[in-house]
Amino acid sequence: MTRARELGLRVLGTTSPNPPVGAVVLDAAGAVVGEGATSPPGGPHAEVHALASAGELARGGTAVVTLEPCAHTGRTGPCADALIAAGVARVVVAVPEPTRLATGGAGRLRAAGVDVELGAEQAAAAEGALAGWLTGVHEHRPQVVWKVATTLDGRVAAADGTSRWITGPEARAAVHALRATCDAVLVGSGTALADDPQLTVRDAEGRTADRQPLRVVLDRRGRVPTTARVHDAAAPTLVSRAATPAALLAELFDSDVRRVLLEGGPTLAAAFLAAGLVDEAVVHVAPTLLGAGAAMVGRLGISTITDALHLQVTDVTRMGGDVQIRLRPTRHTGWTASTGGGS
Amino acid sequence: MTRARELGLRVLGTTSPNPPVGAVVLDAAGAVVGEGATSPPGGPHAEVHALASAGELARGGTAVVTLEPCAHTGRTGPCADALIAAGVARVVVAVPEPTRLATGGAGRLRAAGVDVELGAEQAAAAEGALAGWLTGVHEHRPQVVWKVATTLDGRVAAADGTSRWITGPEARAAVHALRATCDAVLVGSGTALADDPQLTVRDAEGRTADRQPLRVVLDRRGRVPTTARVHDAAAPTLVSRAATPAALLAELFDSDVRRVLLEGGPTLAAAFLAAGLVDEAVVHVAPTLLGAGAAMVGRLGISTITDALHLQVTDVTRMGGDVQIRLRPTRHTGWTASTGGGS
Repeated sequence: MTRARELGLRVLGTTSPNPPVGAVVLDAAGAVVGEGATSPPGGPHAEVHALASAGELARGGTAVVTLEPCAHTGRTGPCADALIAAGVARVVVAVPEPTRLATGGAGRLRAAGVDVELGAEQAAAAEGALAGWLTGVHEHRPQVVWKVATTLDGRVAAADGTSRWITGPEARAAVHALRATCDAVLVGSGTALADDPQLTVRDAEGRTADRQPLRVVLDRRGRVPTTARVHDAAAPTLVSRAATPAALLAELFDSDVRRVLLEGGPTLAAAFLAAGLVDEAVVHVAPTLLGAGAAMVGRLGISTITDALHLQVTDVTRMGGDVQIRLRPTRHTGWTASTGGGS
Repeated sequence: MTRARELGLRVLGTTSPNPPVGAVVLDAAGAVVGEGATSPPGGPHAEVHALASAGELARGGTAVVTLEPCAHTGRTGPCADALIAAGVARVVVAVPEPTRLATGGAGRLRAAGVDVELGAEQAAAAEGALAGWLTGVHEHRPQVVWKVATTLDGRVAAADGTSRWITGPEARAAVHALRATCDAVLVGSGTALADDPQLTVRDAEGRTADRQPLRVVLDRRGRVPTTARVHDAAAPTLVSRAATPAALLAELFDSDVRRVLLEGGPTLAAAFLAAGLVDEAVVHVAPTLLGAGAAMVGRLGISTITDALHLQVTDVTRMGGDVQIRLRPTRHTGWTASTGGGS
């Protein structure tokens, strides 16, 4: 299942609105004979790829998948039927299918005599590649990952507005890798005007990646000129005039976005945080001090220490000279893996 | 030598103005037969303790010490003579004695036929327990360790001034352990008035430790009342009216302080940082956001990103729910182990 989760993570950012699923097929003796992950929309699902690479070796074997195989015919045929046709004896599933549309895969498999185990290492899969898709299922909005680069003293820009570069090349490369896992990258008009970012996925040599997330600029007053780099030909761009973070996320959800990277400045970050609409934070802390300049987060309406917005550190990694801290809000009002549904 | 360094660290904060030295004695076959560390001023040095525990087993053996054994008679006799008398065949030294007063230990040992190796793992010892004492030798001031507890967004207090507790019990316990390694703990009058801290070393149950660092309050205008907790009977307290950080450190140096913990607020921290008088930073980052309130560091006179004060991360540790980041300034103007002197 660890390998299946890894396979799912590899296609994160390329499958929306479909879930990024990973699948491994073992032969009857338990040896890995096939691997697969979800193709972009319209292409085969993970199970089909894994079965194709396994061929006849799948017969009598086991399929390990991060999400319950579908039983409905959408743009592709039902995966449950493909598993039955391949003669798989056992299917191990992490996350039971939570949508009514696709549910019934386990039932169809069992009816065909296949042994099915549901909920194997479910939380790890639900918090991994499937998190964005599950947020969509449960909250009808994309998962929001907030990324921010800050000095040790919480400044995202110096007093004169300069902010390039706060962090080093390793942290900046990590941001591009993070962008590549998202369906959309979001900034406010303030950031678009101040930094004029291109918001594309580029490698260390500056080459633009083939697949690019949607660039989104929240620009209620139409301040960002068409000459801004965010409007260049490198990637599609959406300009939104949504009145609230929730309205913006609804708009993105309707455009099949399931995972959005919030890269905006202090004002936009504060709006999302105050609305409880940040699911994960990726904070790159540079070992520098400024003593003045724009703060990492704008006003949250918090005046006393006991009202502080609490998060939980999930990972700390040194990244070149910087430190990456990943966190999740603990006062999140929405869906979480531990309280969420199932089939 | 690793063990000798550990022994030195154990007595850090108890030996000033003498250096906290660690010593290990091996017998002729290479087995550890004695260990020791510097006693408080007036008591035996590390070598004497280690030789005493080794007894006759030291004869023909090796002494491993973090600092070159002294050759002069101060409050105790010369350690070089004690090593010769014990019949030690070889002495391995990390840091050569940098003061003219005590130098000559290696020479005296060699004259007596003892094999002496100087500079073994010197940098690790110089940056360890001996750092404060060496700062005193080279800069005639105490080593300054700046400790600060901050939210993720660089706030040390909420908008209403409340700041207890930003960090959790593990980080707070680490602060007490850190205080115990220092000769003095320093705050400004602002912190003394706002938080009324006791500034003592206490254990998890709140019991006051036997040995307490000197409490120092920088209070130029005499604002802190005698009823403040920092003036209670739990530890000695010095009120300073020094005009600058350098003047304050000179005052503390003359009081035999070799390692001071700077626990003051943003204004005092900024004054020391701007003066290049912080040798190490211990930053406890809580996974919380406030969006407003006092910043971690006051104005440093920096207006553009390229002028940011740069530090280097030396260690990152998760501490309960918090993250401890240890750093050293890289634009330090003073003495460093790599450029510093020797015997």
